[in-house]
Amino acid sequence: MVNYPERLDRTFAALVDPTRRAILARLEREESASVSALAKPFAIKLPAVMKHLDVLDDAGLITRSKVGRTVTVRLSPEPMREAMDWLRRYERFWSASLDRFAAYAESKEAEMQEKER
Amino acid sequence: MVNYPERLDRTFAALVDPTRRAILARLEREESASVSALAKPFAIKLPAVMKHLDVLDDAGLITRSKVGRTVTVRLSPEPMREAMDWLRRYERFWSASLDRFAAYAESKEAEMQEKER
Repeated sequence: MVNYPERLDRTFAALVDPTRRAILARLEREESASVSALAKPFAIKLPAVMKHLDVLDDAGLITRSKVGRTVTVRLSPEPMREAMDWLRRYERFWSASLDRFAAYAESKEAEMQEKER
Repeated sequence: MVNYPERLDRTFAALVDPTRRAILARLEREESASVSALAKPFAIKLPAVMKHLDVLDDAGLITRSKVGRTVTVRLSPEPMREAMDWLRRYERFWSASLDRFAAYAESKEAEMQEKER
């Protein structure tokens, strides 16, 4: 079993690469896809795509199943939930700056209305 | 200017390391901290901590300001907002499994009440 910090390490490491993020995004839209279908939009060769799939698989972000000669890839989004929960603690900073923006917008509006009188 | 995919690459890469995540978590709790105070809880040497701070700075996740001999580090959480927005699209999978769990819990509860009658 991999512990929580190591799982986070792997999840974030898997998300560093834009090709891997594109694969995950595609699997979010489509239920599942074959390896060759996944590889098609990329300029990189199939073995390079396979390596990216290995990284995603090691991070627990996808599952692969083989029927005959076709390998079907499915999304396994659970590890991303932990990553998002980790990021969520910083949310208060963004809502704080939104609050400040709202207060500023309100004061500006009040100012304008004052001038129009 | 660094574009959106590159910014995401850097943010996720900065978050891969548990020491860097611990530094960010501390800066979330405290308004700001000196480099030496940040380095204190870690078993690694100061130059290693400085390298981690360089990575966080390059990713735009911290700012550093020097007054006299003291370098003060502050959190700059904005890039994590983009990372979280990227992850948010997978949220529907987690709420879907929560919905299934809620439906299961409700049916179990109804079953129990049926038995109690």
